[in-house]
Amino acid sequence: MSVLVVGSVALDSVETPFGKADTVLGGSGTFFSASASHLAPVQLVGVVGTDYPIDTLRDAFKSRPIDLAGLEFADGPSFRWRGRYRHDLNVAETLETKLGVFSNFRPKIPEQFRSAPFVFLGNIDPRLQLEVLTQVAKPKLVACDTMNFWIESRRADIITLLGHVDLITLNDAEARQLTDEANLVRAARWIMERGPKHVVIKKGEHGAFMFTESSIFFAPAFPLESVFDPTGAGDSFAGGFMGYLAKTGDLSDHNLRRAVVYGSAMGSFAVEKFSVQRLLEIRPDDIKRRVSDIHRLVNFEQEL
Amino acid sequence: MSVLVVGSVALDSVETPFGKADTVLGGSGTFFSASASHLAPVQLVGVVGTDYPIDTLRDAFKSRPIDLAGLEFADGPSFRWRGRYRHDLNVAETLETKLGVFSNFRPKIPEQFRSAPFVFLGNIDPRLQLEVLTQVAKPKLVACDTMNFWIESRRADIITLLGHVDLITLNDAEARQLTDEANLVRAARWIMERGPKHVVIKKGEHGAFMFTESSIFFAPAFPLESVFDPTGAGDSFAGGFMGYLAKTGDLSDHNLRRAVVYGSAMGSFAVEKFSVQRLLEIRPDDIKRRVSDIHRLVNFEQEL
Repeated sequence: MSVLVVGSVALDSVETPFGKADTVLGGSGTFFSASASHLAPVQLVGVVGTDYPIDTLRDAFKSRPIDLAGLEFADGPSFRWRGRYRHDLNVAETLETKLGVFSNFRPKIPEQFRSAPFVFLGNIDPRLQLEVLTQVAKPKLVACDTMNFWIESRRADIITLLGHVDLITLNDAEARQLTDEANLVRAARWIMERGPKHVVIKKGEHGAFMFTESSIFFAPAFPLESVFDPTGAGDSFAGGFMGYLAKTGDLSDHNLRRAVVYGSAMGSFAVEKFSVQRLLEIRPDDIKRRVSDIHRLVNFEQEL
Repeated sequence: MSVLVVGSVALDSVETPFGKADTVLGGSGTFFSASASHLAPVQLVGVVGTDYPIDTLRDAFKSRPIDLAGLEFADGPSFRWRGRYRHDLNVAETLETKLGVFSNFRPKIPEQFRSAPFVFLGNIDPRLQLEVLTQVAKPKLVACDTMNFWIESRRADIITLLGHVDLITLNDAEARQLTDEANLVRAARWIMERGPKHVVIKKGEHGAFMFTESSIFFAPAFPLESVFDPTGAGDSFAGGFMGYLAKTGDLSDHNLRRAVVYGSAMGSFAVEKFSVQRLLEIRPDDIKRRVSDIHRLVNFEQEL
């Protein structure tokens, strides 16, 4: 089963304590696709400008089941983000954001994408996320992401959106900001009361929680010896999570747990190199091994 | 088997967003004992001043296997700590520390404590921690804790100490400070190269890692809906960890993992009320249930 993702397709320039990358593939849609496509076919909807190196993207994704038919080419510059990480790799410092053609983006879902069983509404204006939902036919699962900017400027729209999604992914600071609850258990409940049956709260290097009405699941981030560039980890997490669900088509609690672990695994690969580089290199065995490593990391036997 | 703990026995005054407690039982030795004594007999070595409400302590510990024969009474005021937590409960703000008689503390291990198989050197001057080791006979396991103050002022002594302990517990900031490594995997390796076979890095609400030469284990902090007062969580963690090892006498990797989970469970109880209040209320069934809850929290089945 395929995953439809609507998100940004951007050009990133990133500086970390370990090096810098200039004008490389970035954006939530790009990371999500690079990640999810290891597990299921991906349909990407986004927009790029006239300066976008489309051949680089096509080349990067050439051996992947990523359908670019929903990638719109608009007049104007592409979305560009310039950021820096210092010693604390958990905190991105934005040096420059130029929305370019992304600021007028109105997602149009191609006919052949409208029956996608899994839909991920990447971090865009919640009004546009709602518009996407009017264009698709009854998906098996709809998930959305959001960010502080929209929580500040479009809070009411996010709350409307919550009534139309099955699952939301957001980070701990965003969960606290949206709900005004410092405690994540309460924050998750606040969100679930407004619609989603599942809330995934990402804590970066500190792992991720998945809350449902009856249970809480936690998966750690895999402790890597070298984290190179954290950009895109959250989107790669979402890609692994949705990709695994689309691959298996199973929405049971135990399968959702596995999906969170696949998310954590894919997020851990994303940070090992700049841009989507590492996500493009890895093979099915690498993913299996990482999932096993995460299992070993948390596994303990209770006494009888 | 019993656990010998050398640590502070203090009077705390704490303010959190949820209330305040004035001049209540505190100190690393106190929290450790209240926690570990659920699992194994505890021998506490510490010092209090003439103002210390010893009857309150005796009354609190009366139904517990805690031997207070090593509690010294010195002329002068008891160790007092006054602190506050704001919205971010992970960060303690120290308002006042009065070391009192603790500043001249020279631990004297009573004859009948000297053969304790499990020894925990709570967070005191590393020179005194080393002195304690000259007074005990070949324990099965020696663990120590430390803190930023000693890492700054007695770094060389801590490094000497590392050569004489089997395990160290410290928090993530302290691990980074001690090793000058931002990455915790590297920090743990740096420490293991200097002696300890096991390094437990506590991350407060973000859980704890246990590193050994051949494996990494992670246990989350249990996600509570109300964290009331984080004071003593780390010492209660250490108490649960050491208490479980002393109870079982088993130092295999799989048992050490369970010990970390017992640590996490006991830490999660400590923060539910002020001082050692909750640690004194709980019963064996509460602990079992919390350990099961942590198991459920991280448990997932790999695909076949």
